[in-house]
Amino acid sequence: MKNIKLTLEYDGTNYYGWQKQNGMKTIQGELEEAIFNVTKEKCDLTGSSRTDAGVHAKGFIANFKTNSKVPPNKFREALNVKLPNDIVVVKSEEVEESFHARYCAKGKTYEYSILNSDVPSALIRNTVYHYKYNLDVEAMKIAAKQFIGTHDFAAFKTQGSSVKGTIRTIFDVNVEKNDEIIKISVKGDGFLYNMVRIIVGTLINVGRGKTDATDIINIINKKDRTLAGDCVPPNGLILKEVYY
Amino acid sequence: MKNIKLTLEYDGTNYYGWQKQNGMKTIQGELEEAIFNVTKEKCDLTGSSRTDAGVHAKGFIANFKTNSKVPPNKFREALNVKLPNDIVVVKSEEVEESFHARYCAKGKTYEYSILNSDVPSALIRNTVYHYKYNLDVEAMKIAAKQFIGTHDFAAFKTQGSSVKGTIRTIFDVNVEKNDEIIKISVKGDGFLYNMVRIIVGTLINVGRGKTDATDIINIINKKDRTLAGDCVPPNGLILKEVYY
Repeated sequence: MKNIKLTLEYDGTNYYGWQKQNGMKTIQGELEEAIFNVTKEKCDLTGSSRTDAGVHAKGFIANFKTNSKVPPNKFREALNVKLPNDIVVVKSEEVEESFHARYCAKGKTYEYSILNSDVPSALIRNTVYHYKYNLDVEAMKIAAKQFIGTHDFAAFKTQGSSVKGTIRTIFDVNVEKNDEIIKISVKGDGFLYNMVRIIVGTLINVGRGKTDATDIINIINKKDRTLAGDCVPPNGLILKEVYY
Repeated sequence: MKNIKLTLEYDGTNYYGWQKQNGMKTIQGELEEAIFNVTKEKCDLTGSSRTDAGVHAKGFIANFKTNSKVPPNKFREALNVKLPNDIVVVKSEEVEESFHARYCAKGKTYEYSILNSDVPSALIRNTVYHYKYNLDVEAMKIAAKQFIGTHDFAAFKTQGSSVKGTIRTIFDVNVEKNDEIIKISVKGDGFLYNMVRIIVGTLINVGRGKTDATDIINIINKKDRTLAGDCVPPNGLILKEVYY
């Protein structure tokens, strides 16, 4: 059997997230159906993460095993013909049998976009969070760097997730502003449920002056969810890259 | 009566263009309904242009007359509450009685975006035309400048439009490439039906080597529609600005 690795871009707006659920439109569900149409085999598609409803991806990684005679690099075009145009296979390739999109991942970069302006945008509404109050971006930049390192991020997860352990390593957090768009990128070895969106919510509190820029490390150490910020909406979030 | 000028941004993907049509979802129709909800008066909303189905706008101008006591600058928020989120009022202001969004327009800038890459994009699919064959952007830049000036653009219009005369003045045409996105902006005093999209189609012929970069002026002078390029799809087109 061949092990096929797919690199995916998708617009999560019209989906109930990555993971297959009965009767719901999901990214995984659409892809498994497209793969079945091409290979005539049922497959278990493994994803690098489980993005939530409304979250997007540019470099999502998935893999599946197949006996199909379709050349590995031809799956890209064959699947794109079958897929709706809000899910695109950017690359398809054969990888070694042991490759597993989730277990083998060494890290990921997410990016969150805030449209910081009086007026919302019609054209980019599905990929930015519109936030109309003024934000102190310099304070947010200082605060961002305090997330870097290996910490217990218990204060930065939504309850109800089954993931074991709350210690994660953040390699970098960057805050950049161009015109009215603030982009926050977070690179780490793994993330708790809603962790990136709660980090962004906490940085917004810093930008509003509700939380001191130097207080992030205390919030982390106190492990108290109520001290961190809100979980911001999913539409501003993009999974950019997965590292192996 | 007050004359209210609106600056609009909209995503044309889900509309049958600007102009009201019975039983069709149009930008003008949605706006007139929102204005009625706010003012309780029927209004005739005048638009600066009639964008086609699928065409977008960032700086579309419209105006309407009203006896409403809503302060002119407050129409923005009042209308945005009523409008779907793919139509946004960016600004509302009172203007002199004689202002007419179409007749007073002295010029407009349109921008067309081509995603020139092997693979289409899921995330920006509604605002770019995906074109996978290699384009010679330097040749397109040379060709673009030949459109500048006052010419008879009969070769660059789709039949069936009621506009009188085919002489227009193009102030500038710019071609810029950033990564895989080619942006073509066209600034002129007015445009024939589908003129910008046919100019872009002709520039694509130049980029493919089908039309010589120096041949544009001959195509204009021959006034023969068959010598110009195809009318490219609407989704790559944005009305950026209207000048008064």
